[in-house]
Amino acid sequence: MAEPIPQQTRALLLEQYNEDVLEAIDSLKVVDRPVPSLQRGQVLVKIDAAPCNPSDLLLLQAKYGSLKTLPSVPGWEGTGKVIASGGGLLGAWLKGKRVACGLNDDRDGTWAEYFVANATDCVPLNRRLPIDQAASLIVNPMSAMGLLDLAAQGKHQAAVHTAGASQLGRMMIAMADRPLINIVRRKAQVELLHSLGAKYVLNSSDGDFVEKLQEMCKRLKATIAFDAVAGSMTGTVLSAMPPKSTVYVYGALSERPCGNIDPVGLLFHEKKVEGFYLATWLRSRNRLKVFGIARRLQKMLVEGRIETRIQRRLSLDEAVDGLKQYVRNMTDGKVLITP
Amino acid sequence: MAEPIPQQTRALLLEQYNEDVLEAIDSLKVVDRPVPSLQRGQVLVKIDAAPCNPSDLLLLQAKYGSLKTLPSVPGWEGTGKVIASGGGLLGAWLKGKRVACGLNDDRDGTWAEYFVANATDCVPLNRRLPIDQAASLIVNPMSAMGLLDLAAQGKHQAAVHTAGASQLGRMMIAMADRPLINIVRRKAQVELLHSLGAKYVLNSSDGDFVEKLQEMCKRLKATIAFDAVAGSMTGTVLSAMPPKSTVYVYGALSERPCGNIDPVGLLFHEKKVEGFYLATWLRSRNRLKVFGIARRLQKMLVEGRIETRIQRRLSLDEAVDGLKQYVRNMTDGKVLITP
Repeated sequence: MAEPIPQQTRALLLEQYNEDVLEAIDSLKVVDRPVPSLQRGQVLVKIDAAPCNPSDLLLLQAKYGSLKTLPSVPGWEGTGKVIASGGGLLGAWLKGKRVACGLNDDRDGTWAEYFVANATDCVPLNRRLPIDQAASLIVNPMSAMGLLDLAAQGKHQAAVHTAGASQLGRMMIAMADRPLINIVRRKAQVELLHSLGAKYVLNSSDGDFVEKLQEMCKRLKATIAFDAVAGSMTGTVLSAMPPKSTVYVYGALSERPCGNIDPVGLLFHEKKVEGFYLATWLRSRNRLKVFGIARRLQKMLVEGRIETRIQRRLSLDEAVDGLKQYVRNMTDGKVLITP
Repeated sequence: MAEPIPQQTRALLLEQYNEDVLEAIDSLKVVDRPVPSLQRGQVLVKIDAAPCNPSDLLLLQAKYGSLKTLPSVPGWEGTGKVIASGGGLLGAWLKGKRVACGLNDDRDGTWAEYFVANATDCVPLNRRLPIDQAASLIVNPMSAMGLLDLAAQGKHQAAVHTAGASQLGRMMIAMADRPLINIVRRKAQVELLHSLGAKYVLNSSDGDFVEKLQEMCKRLKATIAFDAVAGSMTGTVLSAMPPKSTVYVYGALSERPCGNIDPVGLLFHEKKVEGFYLATWLRSRNRLKVFGIARRLQKMLVEGRIETRIQRRLSLDEAVDGLKQYVRNMTDGKVLITP
């Protein structure tokens, strides 16, 4: 029997951006929002779980690249069941299925009971994939796959990743199909990544980091880098890589502009700095390829070869307090909002 | 009657790099150097004149991207007559002709009586082109053409140039086949460039420079920039341009690494930072196209539509004193070494 289509949804509402992340979280309100009528190509997802990602926290602070018109519901991804379709072949096919879904528009997000998704931003789920893992399928694992796809397309023999100890970094270690030089900031992280099977790990706090990075990039022919740090790291890595290398910036954990970029490398060694943004990459690949990647990812998640660590589940009413605790201790894993 | 092929050439010799440019010039010695035997594809040029460019001064200081094994003769370009060929069709065709010639290898340069050039690095000269203008045909005018070619190839509707008042900048104003936003550093330069016919000139010292640049880039759809300044200018210009813009760095007048590059632009707006190096660009274009560009440039020089301003000619023996005076006053134009 079809589920009834609700007129209203409970949701976490952001009314104002706030540079202070704790104040921003504190301002979130649980409200009843109208469910917009579905357009052709859209589906209605009854959300089971939606994570809080770094990009969500950046949005609350107005530091994310694509801001939304407020008031709006945060949440860039989640998982749930498609209970209605606004029309179109893909939507009809998805109806009744469990999906992981993302949002790339200026509309209400996934921190709600019900979420309107573009059918093209949904991927159908493997039955054996637990909700916890399905909730975070898009942003981290698909980004890791997208970055590795860039390395494959460009026939780069090896790659550098500047956020080796991040959740995405750990996944990338398990996924990488070519040598990966992982950069971390602490000695304990070096040991952790080695224990996860990483062969090449460098600590940027070491005095000889730059020399080691240069030697390793040259030896392994690492001509592509994935940079989530920005700031001077972008230029440091670009300088360490051989001629004809490219740094793809995909995050800015340092919260600083990219710098330290040697003009000599750009001019004489054909080096480049570009960006990687998941939504742009997804639009540039065909749907079957994206579904194929999503299937491979889910298989790895089901088999436990990669994992998103979850520290806590929060109902909508628990979300404000839970998110505040989370930003004070992010090392134990993500939190999920489970409406 | 064929000119005799000399065994020796008088030349200015650099024995040691020196960060202090005046000391570096002071260390140059006039010596007799052996003329290497010509390889196939090479020609011997009897030099009439060779300029001192910023890239020559950078070489003396070991700040240039492609350094040479010392001792060596500086000089990246010049003009003269081809008096011998080491073999090959192009060399045979060039023999007896006046040419402009460049150097992109770790070999002796043009600050000498005789210079061994790759035939592919020579362009034949228009008879009416004066030696003063022929001497500097390659580095500045060809770079200006190469950069404008990038704008044409990429179908960019308008372009930004960060060194509007430079000699290359003034040439580019005369050559540009699409709107060009010229950035200068002083009010007097704004008026100068307007008097040369530039329509769009912005002074980076003005308080509202960034806002004006942003407005102008948006209105004219300037999605490509040519940056000879580097430092924070690279990022400032990239941020001011619309989505899908690229900054091509081709110099570093600020002597600083490129910085201030907003990760948001790289990620969300598909912006890029790349380099432009004349030798790389020349290798990527076919020979007939390069000759065609050289012909157009010479026509513009003959007609006086573009001009390299020359402040002084120096014999090899006058070079050390003359170059030292030149670096203290570069605004009156280039100096030429005329062996």
